[in-house]
This record gives sequence, structure tokens and C-alpha cells, in this order.
Amino acid sequence: MMKSDDNGSIDVESSAESKGKAPLIGNGKEKPNKLKKIMGVVDFVLRLAAIIAALAAAATMGTSDETATFFTQVFRIEASYDDVPTFTFFVIAMAIVAGYLVLSLMFSVITIIRPNFAIARILLFIFDIVVLALAAASAAAAAAIVYLAHNGNRNTNWQAICQQFGHFCQKVSGAVVTSFVAVVLLMLLVLLSGFNFILKKK
Amino acid sequence: MMKSDDNGSIDVESSAESKGKAPLIGNGKEKPNKLKKIMGVVDFVLRLAAIIAALAAAATMGTSDETATFFTQVFRIEASYDDVPTFTFFVIAMAIVAGYLVLSLMFSVITIIRPNFAIARILLFIFDIVVLALAAASAAAAAAIVYLAHNGNRNTNWQAICQQFGHFCQKVSGAVVTSFVAVVLLMLLVLLSGFNFILKKK
Repeated sequence: MMKSDDNGSIDVESSAESKGKAPLIGNGKEKPNKLKKIMGVVDFVLRLAAIIAALAAAATMGTSDETATFFTQVFRIEASYDDVPTFTFFVIAMAIVAGYLVLSLMFSVITIIRPNFAIARILLFIFDIVVLALAAASAAAAAAIVYLAHNGNRNTNWQAICQQFGHFCQKVSGAVVTSFVAVVLLMLLVLLSGFNFILKKK
Repeated sequence: MMKSDDNGSIDVESSAESKGKAPLIGNGKEKPNKLKKIMGVVDFVLRLAAIIAALAAAATMGTSDETATFFTQVFRIEASYDDVPTFTFFVIAMAIVAGYLVLSLMFSVITIIRPNFAIARILLFIFDIVVLALAAASAAAAAAIVYLAHNGNRNTNWQAICQQFGHFCQKVSGAVVTSFVAVVLLMLLVLLSGFNFILKKK
């Protein structure tokens, strides 16, 4: 009834339902491993999607600039992402998120090949949480400034700038929306890691 | 060698080191349960600390207002958190975070009393991730506006307002710093949940 897995550990588990069905315990070991492989593949795909979202957000923000001409070329004002420190932070943070996710793909592949290699899973779990917080923070900070650019604030006398820089605002808003997609994907990744840890208990 | 826990499930586990030391497997079952209780207590304490941080952040932001007088009382301008939508969002989000954490204390107590009650742990894990993202987002959004209030932005012609409203800015900055403490505590809570899930595997 006991089965030794490739790590050399002995593991016999049974859920409450299969209690008393001793011959099934051995077969139960195969299932979690198969499910773990599937979860590993889902993890890999989610990471790929998150890389695309984070890179798209960074690239859209990084290429956002517009030159507006007022009063028949007496004033020429340029708006660029590096005019606003929050947007610069956004580009750097999204680049870090994308860079980490590319590195994490390697670990993700390791967990697919060897589902019981716990250290890779634990490392991914810890860094996924940190990167999730970073992504959520940079996305929200940029969103706060984009909101201000669209609506302005009368109480603090901050004028909306989107009338003058419509194209710039559109690109910046797109980058923020894309970054929130990355945040949602990272939340799913952390959730998936947690469920992967539970799997053996069930 | 097999031991039935209070959930009625049969569980026998052994790590690679204890391989071949069959009589120790039974004793190994007691240890994780004790460690789980300790982790449950740490979880409870972290939640209490996070509640204090989130409530303090919401209260500090919510009571931040200042009346500045310019040109010997010709102009009287009041600055309050509800002048800036981002700050209003911050107060609401921090109140939600604190409210959720108070509710979660109940579940935390359940997991201390019954360490193997998996549903409570899983629910806490899922909602902790959502609340972590919410807290990080509201803290960062408020931080972006606080940065603007302190430094202004010449390119977008947004003036710094902290010269006029020094006391207001100080309170708002304090609220943001406190909210980041709550974010760090929530990150630790999610991490702790993950390690709790792993525990049985080790």
C-alpha cells in the first residue's frame, strides 16, 4: 500500500471519503501527481500571459509622448511619461515584474518536470507575493495620476491635462488597464501555488 | 503505523531523512499539529497588528483637515481628505481591509482550535490575497497623490500644496506610511498561510 515517489519519501494518504477502502490508497498517489502536472502547466501559461501583460503595460507607458501646439506654434509643449515620476516608477516596476516572470518560467518548468521539487515551488510562492504587491502598487499609483490627468482637482487647483494631450492620456490609460490585467494574473498565480501546496493534504 | 486524526482521515508521512525509521512516523504526526497551533497563534497576532495599522491609517486620513488663511483672511481655504477622490478611496479601502480582518479573526481562532479544518484556512488564504491587493493599491494610489502634494509637477503645472497645508500633508503622509505597514503584515499573512499548507508535506 505504501509507495515510494522519486524523492525517496514514503507517502500514503487517504481522504475521509476513501476511508476503509484500503486498496485505493495506493492509486490515490498517482492522481495528485497528474493533477500537479496540469497545475504546473496552468502556472506556466498564466506566467506567459502575465509577462505579455506586464511588457505591454511597460511598453505602452514607455512610448507615450505627445507634442501639443497652442496658439499657432507660439507654445509647443511635450507630454511624456518621464514628466511624471509616478509614470517612470510604473515603467520600472512593470519591467521588474516582467523580468522576474521570465526568470520564474524556468522554475515553473522545473515544477512541471519534478512536481515534488518543493524548494522551487516555495521560492516561486514567496517572490510571487512580493511581485504581486509591487505590481498592484505601481498600477494603482499610475491610476491615481491618470484619474487626475483626466478630471483634475479644483480643490488643489490641479488642472486636467487630457484636453490638451488626448493621445498621451489614451496611451497612459491603456497601460494602466493592462497592468491591472497583470495584477489579476499574479493573484491567480499566488492562489494556484497555495492550492498546489494543499493538494497532498486532500 | 497509521494514525487517524480528528477529521477521520488516515495519514502516514515520512520525509527522506526518517526513511527506514518506521517507529518514528507515528510521532511525526504530533509535531506538525503543535507547529500548526503556533502558526495559528502567529496568524492571529499578525491579524491583530494589521487591524490596528489599517484602522490607524483610515482614522488618520479620515480626520485630516486644515484651514489655511491667506492674505489676512481674504481667502480661507480648507483642505480635507474628501477634497481628493484618491484619499476618499483610501479611507474606504482601509476600512474594508480592517473590517475584513476583524471578521477573519473568527476564522483564525477556528484554525487554532482545529488545525485540520481546511476550509477555514483556504477561505482565509483566498480573501487575504484579494485584501492584500486592495490594500497595496489604495496605499500606493494615496502615496502617488501625497508625493504630488509635496513636490508638485512643473510639467503638468500641478503646484505643491504642502507649503500652505503643512499639517494636512503631515497627517496624510502618516496615514500612507501606516497603510504600508498593513500591506507588509498582509504579505506575511499570505506567506504564513502558504507555509501552513506545506507543513504536512514536510
